[in-house]
Amino acid sequence: MNDRETEKQTLLDAINSPEDIRQLSIPQLGELAEQIRDFIVSTVSDTGGHLASNLGTIEATLAMHYVFDFSKDYLLWDVGHQCYAHKIITGRKDKFSLLRKEGGVSGFPEPSESSYDRFRVGHAGTSIATGLGIGWGLMDQGRDDKVVSFVGDGSIVNGASFEALNNLPGLPRQMLVVLNDNNMSIDVTRGAVAKIFSKIRLNSTYEELNRTAKTIIEHMPLIGKQVEGAVQRFKKAIRMQQSAGQLFESLNLSYFGPVNGHDIGSLIELFTALKDLDHPAVLHIYTNKGKGYKPAGDNPSKYHSTGPFYINGESKKSGKKSYTKVLGEALCEIAADKNSGVAAITAAMPEGTGLNIFRDHFPDKYYDVGICESAAVDMAAGMAKTGLTPFVCLYSTFLQRAFDQIAHDIAQQNLHVVFCIDRAGVVGDDGPTHHGMLDIGMLRMLPNMILCAPASGEEMRSALMYAEKTKAPVGIRYPRDVLPENLSDIESLSEDFETGKSVLLSAGDADVVLVSYGAVLTEVVEAAKILEQSGLRCDVLNARFAKPIDPQIVELAREGKMLFCLEDHGAAAGFCSAVLEELSKAGVSSENVFCLAAPDEYIDKASRKTQLERCCVGSEEISRQVQARIRDNNLYEKAHT
Amino acid sequence: MNDRETEKQTLLDAINSPEDIRQLSIPQLGELAEQIRDFIVSTVSDTGGHLASNLGTIEATLAMHYVFDFSKDYLLWDVGHQCYAHKIITGRKDKFSLLRKEGGVSGFPEPSESSYDRFRVGHAGTSIATGLGIGWGLMDQGRDDKVVSFVGDGSIVNGASFEALNNLPGLPRQMLVVLNDNNMSIDVTRGAVAKIFSKIRLNSTYEELNRTAKTIIEHMPLIGKQVEGAVQRFKKAIRMQQSAGQLFESLNLSYFGPVNGHDIGSLIELFTALKDLDHPAVLHIYTNKGKGYKPAGDNPSKYHSTGPFYINGESKKSGKKSYTKVLGEALCEIAADKNSGVAAITAAMPEGTGLNIFRDHFPDKYYDVGICESAAVDMAAGMAKTGLTPFVCLYSTFLQRAFDQIAHDIAQQNLHVVFCIDRAGVVGDDGPTHHGMLDIGMLRMLPNMILCAPASGEEMRSALMYAEKTKAPVGIRYPRDVLPENLSDIESLSEDFETGKSVLLSAGDADVVLVSYGAVLTEVVEAAKILEQSGLRCDVLNARFAKPIDPQIVELAREGKMLFCLEDHGAAAGFCSAVLEELSKAGVSSENVFCLAAPDEYIDKASRKTQLERCCVGSEEISRQVQARIRDNNLYEKAHT
Repeated sequence: MNDRETEKQTLLDAINSPEDIRQLSIPQLGELAEQIRDFIVSTVSDTGGHLASNLGTIEATLAMHYVFDFSKDYLLWDVGHQCYAHKIITGRKDKFSLLRKEGGVSGFPEPSESSYDRFRVGHAGTSIATGLGIGWGLMDQGRDDKVVSFVGDGSIVNGASFEALNNLPGLPRQMLVVLNDNNMSIDVTRGAVAKIFSKIRLNSTYEELNRTAKTIIEHMPLIGKQVEGAVQRFKKAIRMQQSAGQLFESLNLSYFGPVNGHDIGSLIELFTALKDLDHPAVLHIYTNKGKGYKPAGDNPSKYHSTGPFYINGESKKSGKKSYTKVLGEALCEIAADKNSGVAAITAAMPEGTGLNIFRDHFPDKYYDVGICESAAVDMAAGMAKTGLTPFVCLYSTFLQRAFDQIAHDIAQQNLHVVFCIDRAGVVGDDGPTHHGMLDIGMLRMLPNMILCAPASGEEMRSALMYAEKTKAPVGIRYPRDVLPENLSDIESLSEDFETGKSVLLSAGDADVVLVSYGAVLTEVVEAAKILEQSGLRCDVLNARFAKPIDPQIVELAREGKMLFCLEDHGAAAGFCSAVLEELSKAGVSSENVFCLAAPDEYIDKASRKTQLERCCVGSEEISRQVQARIRDNNLYEKAHT
Repeated sequence: MNDRETEKQTLLDAINSPEDIRQLSIPQLGELAEQIRDFIVSTVSDTGGHLASNLGTIEATLAMHYVFDFSKDYLLWDVGHQCYAHKIITGRKDKFSLLRKEGGVSGFPEPSESSYDRFRVGHAGTSIATGLGIGWGLMDQGRDDKVVSFVGDGSIVNGASFEALNNLPGLPRQMLVVLNDNNMSIDVTRGAVAKIFSKIRLNSTYEELNRTAKTIIEHMPLIGKQVEGAVQRFKKAIRMQQSAGQLFESLNLSYFGPVNGHDIGSLIELFTALKDLDHPAVLHIYTNKGKGYKPAGDNPSKYHSTGPFYINGESKKSGKKSYTKVLGEALCEIAADKNSGVAAITAAMPEGTGLNIFRDHFPDKYYDVGICESAAVDMAAGMAKTGLTPFVCLYSTFLQRAFDQIAHDIAQQNLHVVFCIDRAGVVGDDGPTHHGMLDIGMLRMLPNMILCAPASGEEMRSALMYAEKTKAPVGIRYPRDVLPENLSDIESLSEDFETGKSVLLSAGDADVVLVSYGAVLTEVVEAAKILEQSGLRCDVLNARFAKPIDPQIVELAREGKMLFCLEDHGAAAGFCSAVLEELSKAGVSSENVFCLAAPDEYIDKASRKTQLERCCVGSEEISRQVQARIRDNNLYEKAHT
């Protein structure tokens, strides 16, 4: 037993580049896959991360690296939350103890880490189109480097994927789409394509998958050489895959599969056979999300993206309540009123958005459209036209994918649709692809839109109640965070939301006012304490609304108070920017108005607290900035009094 | 002849609502269709508008209104540029002399005009998802009103359409998608789906289409009653449509067709048969874009959206050169340099973007992906990764559809992709769905992005040359307009573009500076003349860049000059807003800085000049605003000196 442990360690230890993979036998590769699996479970239990997806794709990753040379060939991960094995075998396993942490390895493909990561990616549905573009670029330069896009069955139904698939047959060269079908996008995959995939999967035995793989391998040499009739004979030989392939065949794309995505030996043969095709093709592989770790295999949705956990599956999380959870509960409360006509829409994120709570209580009012943000918003537009009040629950970063639908279909017609914008602001470990730094700017440009942001659990509930009653498109932004603990005594936070009305948290007689938008209030209140200890008393105003801006804020500036506007959003076009615009409209000087918001750069992975500090809205940075500005302006004494 | 003319007039004259349609016989409906066709050709020759698409859909429109009752049933137009016949027969024909003009009828569906227009729409790919949402909403309320989405073959390949189709089979009630296949999106439809449609169309005789229609009508009663085996027998009876339907069948959607979309009698029978299906279905109809007007039938791309023309087909346009044309020519110039590695990408708009010029000279560097903006941008990302320099040419309003791809796939990785943003600002007759009022705000939030805007033909060329050399994502915005004629003498406009560098058009010693961004410069220069006549001399600064903002602008404010910042974009988050942010960062007062930009509302159709005035950036409104502010500030005398 001990010997075997040692041997296992040795195998993974010796892998420093894909070159090393190619020295191993098929059984050794199988061993290596298990070692990588153990390594991932053990790492992620410490660091948190995307577990289930990464456990499912190890064998396919090894087989691809065995056959292709990704130091020159292009491997494109869709979403990218399945790249751990790829990172481990491309020289980065030593940095895994800091997976998703400052100074460690990113949870997503990251070109600055390794030339094996071709594309920084974290959103779904992009890899086929980027692969197509790379294909055209390589052709232009007469290069025959191979291109492989690795796409999950959840991503392939995204609109951008389909747009790319529709254009793919026009590419007159090799490009392989590996369709990684685990019958799960993040939760159960929704929609017609998923249903078909799932039906076929249910009817596919292990033996049939093997037979399909053999048939492909046998026929490929003739197909590759375009021997007449080879494709027809091949199709005849594989009957079982007809309906799975129908979608791709209807697009004139060569389809192969389905095959077992955990059988390394057969995958290597398949990739070898498909590598030299002179036209785009799809290889459909079956994998099990969470494979090899029972808790993740049993509940892949829970282990899609997880915090640290004990190996028995128990979470190490604090158990503290999050904004997300309040969303789920408050929506249930609203829906319980029979007259409310609420519908809740998610794009494949019932757990991430807290809508799993709503789904369990109101399955008939719950809609999961899959990773289809554009359709989600347009569907909401239709619902609103009939008098329903849809709550569209999306992460801020994914809301970007429906910007035009919000602008063109919702805001222009002043439809009563509520956008519950989760993961707004910096998101911590997931890093730059997942921050929500653009939502205020993109939405406040739209006439009719109302934007607000709660700063506590109580305000979260109030904001939702307010939005349900307000006959306009309303955006509510809130962070990936637990509820603040330092605001429970503050009475003004329990006041109902009223359009464009801020609430004051303090006496209102200080010369310096910290004007806070949304969840950064918890940091702002701490900063005010630090400042008070240093002898500077500040008022704290909780703005609540980014559109419309409370006229009171303009009045404070007119009175000559020194204002610090604070937000967890890019400084460009955000809340602070909206305040400046209002001042300009009112002809009030902005000389004593300062903006503390995220800089014009991409904020790397780190804890949310660290990132807030970097964005000038952590309590320490706030107090430093306020003190510095006051000194700069020779106002310290004035404000001090 | 004279009698016949009179009779024709009488038929259309008597139609004031869909109720009147239902009183006509099939031959009379055919007559009416021809009268509507004449009416549309004659109207559009005066007013300009979407001609070809509207000529192709008249019979289908009449048949739908004959069968459905759209005073309660829902008719959803995709894009909406084919709704003229619908508007004519729903009580609006008298307003057609002002089609697309102030006070007249909009060129797109517009709920404020008529309750028959369910949805304000002007973008592609939305109608299936909104129809789906309406279906869910009606179910929730126990209503069985019918839902029909009318979608072109160019729109159905858009990602949002596919997302909706994938979700459609889950709707347990009637919803009919009419696929209007004219083998054209705006230009020739691109991609695999189009190829398949086109192949089948070529092989479909008139007789076969009729036979298919008969077969559907015969089998429908049994299918509708879910008689066992009816669907199978039906499918067996129609063999020819198999591959056209394969895409829909692969999504588990009932597919019927293709049938002749100009045969009113048979369409009426088909809609009657399909109306009571208890599940979603697709009816595939063939129509001819431009039908009945030879110049439009011969060249539907040219007559997709046309200005006024003579009935013989000759354009009444001025023949003046547009920004769009300069784009086409300058890109050719850049591509002629073998080392440039330029690729030009359009989403179904070769004529609209001026890329038809480029396509004719460099077919190998030209890519039309169909109405697939998201894939266009992701494809550009892939191309840039291989060293190509893609120029993505989109209308500003459609660029919104690729916001996430620009943010996530281009800007984050600082890829050298140039966005040529046509139709930026107000667009005149097309109205609110087509204005480009959001591009500055949405793009300037993205780290790495550079934004500039030319103010003349010469600057347009310089901006493109600059963008080709600048290794970053660059956005260039320009209007739907002819080149200005009042700027040809101004030397500074011929200076090369340099990142963040503005150019001064005047002496630089006035106390008031008009800071102009982009094509409004022509209006600003006129305003300066008006002001000068009134005794107020202003300097004019052409900012050229919205990101980064020229530090000189901040310096001018610091020096105490009075600045008027001007842009053809929403006031929220635009160029003016960016200037205010820079002032705030630099600690410079904005007290004497005024923003003239579009108000927070949707600007109705009118001439571009009228709209510019409404957005405070027409020459007259600029001079009024400047004079008013100066009086307000008691600075008139100071500025006057």
